[in-house]
Amino acid sequence: MKIAIAQINPTIGNISGNVQQILQLAKQAVEQNARLLLTPELSLCGYPPRDLLLNPGFVEEISATLQQLAQDLPPQLAVLVGTVEPNPKAQQAGGKPLFNSIALLEAGKVQQIFHKRLLPTYDVFDEYRYFEPGLQSNSFTLTPLDSETSTQDSALKIGVTICEDLWNDEEFWGKRSYQADPIADLAQQGVDFIVNLSASPYSLGKQKLREAMLRHGAKRYQQPMIYTNQVGGNDDLVFDGRSVAFNRDGEIVCRAAAFETDLAIVEFDERSLDLFPSKIAPVPRSEDEEIWSALVLGVRDYTRKCGFSQVVIGLSGGIDSSLVAAIATAALGAENVFGILMPSPYSSEHSITDAEELAANLGITIHTLPIGELMQGYDKTLEPLFAGTEFGIAEENIQSRIRGNLLMAVANKFGYLLLSTGNKSEMAVGYCTLYGDMNGGLAVIADVPKTRVYSLCQWLNQKGMATSASRSPIPKNILTKPPSAELKPGQLDQDSLPSYEVLDDILSRMIHHHQSSAEIVKAGHNPVIVDQVMRLVARAEFKRRQAPPGIKITDRAFGTGWRMPIASRWLKSNSQQADCATNGQD
Amino acid sequence: MKIAIAQINPTIGNISGNVQQILQLAKQAVEQNARLLLTPELSLCGYPPRDLLLNPGFVEEISATLQQLAQDLPPQLAVLVGTVEPNPKAQQAGGKPLFNSIALLEAGKVQQIFHKRLLPTYDVFDEYRYFEPGLQSNSFTLTPLDSETSTQDSALKIGVTICEDLWNDEEFWGKRSYQADPIADLAQQGVDFIVNLSASPYSLGKQKLREAMLRHGAKRYQQPMIYTNQVGGNDDLVFDGRSVAFNRDGEIVCRAAAFETDLAIVEFDERSLDLFPSKIAPVPRSEDEEIWSALVLGVRDYTRKCGFSQVVIGLSGGIDSSLVAAIATAALGAENVFGILMPSPYSSEHSITDAEELAANLGITIHTLPIGELMQGYDKTLEPLFAGTEFGIAEENIQSRIRGNLLMAVANKFGYLLLSTGNKSEMAVGYCTLYGDMNGGLAVIADVPKTRVYSLCQWLNQKGMATSASRSPIPKNILTKPPSAELKPGQLDQDSLPSYEVLDDILSRMIHHHQSSAEIVKAGHNPVIVDQVMRLVARAEFKRRQAPPGIKITDRAFGTGWRMPIASRWLKSNSQQADCATNGQD
Repeated sequence: MKIAIAQINPTIGNISGNVQQILQLAKQAVEQNARLLLTPELSLCGYPPRDLLLNPGFVEEISATLQQLAQDLPPQLAVLVGTVEPNPKAQQAGGKPLFNSIALLEAGKVQQIFHKRLLPTYDVFDEYRYFEPGLQSNSFTLTPLDSETSTQDSALKIGVTICEDLWNDEEFWGKRSYQADPIADLAQQGVDFIVNLSASPYSLGKQKLREAMLRHGAKRYQQPMIYTNQVGGNDDLVFDGRSVAFNRDGEIVCRAAAFETDLAIVEFDERSLDLFPSKIAPVPRSEDEEIWSALVLGVRDYTRKCGFSQVVIGLSGGIDSSLVAAIATAALGAENVFGILMPSPYSSEHSITDAEELAANLGITIHTLPIGELMQGYDKTLEPLFAGTEFGIAEENIQSRIRGNLLMAVANKFGYLLLSTGNKSEMAVGYCTLYGDMNGGLAVIADVPKTRVYSLCQWLNQKGMATSASRSPIPKNILTKPPSAELKPGQLDQDSLPSYEVLDDILSRMIHHHQSSAEIVKAGHNPVIVDQVMRLVARAEFKRRQAPPGIKITDRAFGTGWRMPIASRWLKSNSQQADCATNGQD
Repeated sequence: MKIAIAQINPTIGNISGNVQQILQLAKQAVEQNARLLLTPELSLCGYPPRDLLLNPGFVEEISATLQQLAQDLPPQLAVLVGTVEPNPKAQQAGGKPLFNSIALLEAGKVQQIFHKRLLPTYDVFDEYRYFEPGLQSNSFTLTPLDSETSTQDSALKIGVTICEDLWNDEEFWGKRSYQADPIADLAQQGVDFIVNLSASPYSLGKQKLREAMLRHGAKRYQQPMIYTNQVGGNDDLVFDGRSVAFNRDGEIVCRAAAFETDLAIVEFDERSLDLFPSKIAPVPRSEDEEIWSALVLGVRDYTRKCGFSQVVIGLSGGIDSSLVAAIATAALGAENVFGILMPSPYSSEHSITDAEELAANLGITIHTLPIGELMQGYDKTLEPLFAGTEFGIAEENIQSRIRGNLLMAVANKFGYLLLSTGNKSEMAVGYCTLYGDMNGGLAVIADVPKTRVYSLCQWLNQKGMATSASRSPIPKNILTKPPSAELKPGQLDQDSLPSYEVLDDILSRMIHHHQSSAEIVKAGHNPVIVDQVMRLVARAEFKRRQAPPGIKITDRAFGTGWRMPIASRWLKSNSQQADCATNGQD
């Protein structure tokens, strides 16, 4: 029996458009003689729908569409579709009003409904905000079309799980996160194979973890597993696809494409009761390649799903904006990327020539808008108030905000999406200007630490770009010169910050591993620097709160999964408080 | 037996400072012969601590401080303190790592720990993200000091509930939200009275609801109820205090101050087993007075808790900035409020004179920074790119962003906090400029609809301000002239938007009542306007995502409790998508 995995790229709330994707792949699945089609979690509305779920009209549209879809699908194909279902007992028994559900559609009708049992409520996930957990083990029987005698005897019993339902094997994790383990329950009941319908967002190394976990489960329970994932970018989250299937020996038998829509077919052998080997898409050859692909997809989908086709980027001649321009070029085509150079009297000669060389390499159009006269204009306007004060952070920020204003003017005038270019290290310590270089609809590399920005550019130069005139798109000088904000003469990042190798290690321990300063110092870092970094991170919270969405590529990003108070004293000394809502490159 | 309610104003994460507040009120409670002191939910760390709870070091500091506090408190006083407790069974049984708890401290020791049973996970609340629900009914016994024979016989049994534990009476609400009802459980067990330790954020009318609910519970179960609430502003949330007690007949016997720290004393009569009448603070005389008090406290606390003492505000001569200036003056004193006038060639004469009159009325210092030359500077800089295009939204936004840049320059130079002045109606439909008039550390009236802005100003003029030179601080012309952004000649808000009466009613139905466009039309609104408003709200999501925290005064604010996707198609037509990340006053 053939099972088709529809790795679709839904747009949140575009219910009719998402259904069209399902219908199209259902047609292809039938052409390939599939009996069962799997779609991702919440495939009708896309994941995550967030507070759209609070609108009764939204839920009603999903329900109505589900009924219509059942009629429109090929009747001989059984299809599992992700949907939401009202919880009829919510008001009397107490509980959330909805379930996160899967509907089994077949022969023109909704045949069965299954509810997700484990509801992730951590990091970017808010499922307990909307959903009541299902309490029952989920399975259905399906008679293969091609079986010679289509009797009950030949019917297969298929276990159904939804995303997080898979993630609670205490043997694999060394702990439980939830009381129930839906996989263990299904194995105990006895099913022929287990499907999991997911919308699992990308982070670096996540696929290794998923495959290790699936392999473990398949072997532990001697149970073939077929995992379907969503693909595509939705705001800060990129879903990487890579749907995958394992046979009962824990061997991988199928892997769908990474970061692309796909229709993968696996075949269940009713004699051996196991999956046949099938097409296995390769994994990225390096971490840099994987991250690059995620960022390209994230930019392409955010741009497209917001209705834009063209983007504008401020090019400083620095490595961050160069990487963002390269990503945008790969995502949208050189003809859809516009670079703006905005030199000031503090800009070095190379910052202009480096940006020009980059643009030539990428084949993108650039314009130059010098800001010297506007800087003088602000100086003159503010002179009555600022007379007698020293040049400082206020003046540095004015420059950054002039550039931010010019970029938004170009974006507004021509209908471009502005991409911002700050990296995660900067966003962490607040080495960026709110309403200045932070401006944009999408912060492309806001979850990419500075050291990774370098390695991505080096990887890119080794690989070369299809759209690039030269084999090495990032000019060598951009990779080798010391980083500088160029907001005052001779300024270097390392005048204000530790080296990026040191900074990124401290940040990783603090942000990803929740280490205390004592633990970080014990790992070999200078206590003064650790203390400085922790205070900088705490006091930059007000900037991050106003940042655009950034594409998440790590297990902890400054986005919807980062929920920190601003007016808080934790980790901040009193003296630092005075800076809490100021801006600066300090 | 006397029971003291410590209505404290904690700062999030300032554990040692919060303990000092508890110790100080404990001393006063002892002086007033209290036997028991109640403090709010999570009183050690302040509510809501959010993702600070993910740091093991933070939890350890709370635990260590709790032990020390037990020793430092007067030994004869029993004290209930809000704290977090590790869940020892989390890893084996599956569950969240912490409990939201109350510790009973007495005689130098932690005597008992109680866990919160109902965990709100909706709107601004994320408790299931961090906490495991408690499963047991919570009570303790206490022997009154003044009882003539201090035997077990005279001991009182006191039921303990934490905030949401109180909010699930299916008779009062007409439905259940959770399976358990901790109040019903305690009443069934038989306790002498029930205490509830809360951190319940303010919204308009919330106190009426709380008191009706407490009255209902007290009468239904013939159970005296003592409710302790946190007070103070923490980022977007204002806690209004107004701790309150009801006797077993459902009569109010005590109410603490609104929007202020307080120590209230209630007395339990061991003969009648009921509460004696005590001091009852008055309620605000109007909705406007209540909202005004919330906004003043919100501004004062955000400013103070972020370490600022002075604020700067852009004064346009319009009603929004006038109201914000008046609130800031009441919160911080006229000497700590600075107004900046930034007239352009499109500014009317009255916009300057009205702002000057307002400033004179409030007694605040103003400076004027004309922006005409900077506008010309941008025109000149952008001329090579913009030549041949029409004046439009791009140019309007440039003006707003020049002002935003100047305000931030002043804030950065002098260490002021910038307050932004947009109202909820504007924020809803996107009639505001990102990186322009939206700039600021705190959006003071972002949850105040425009029609309420008018009524607040009218109320203020009737009441007068203590700090104001004139009895009516808001100049009459500001109240009567038609609203205008003044970004092009003769521009009026009502050229682009329906009247604010109509707009605010549609928004209220959409945002607060989740009504569909069909329902709103059925209520009598023009379908074309309803459609326009709904699409404007949907497409302005990208602006709200980058807005500063706004002070929540309604049951649904655009803040931490509003979680909408940006790149979504729900309610947006395709043609509208092209504007999704542009800005404008359109």
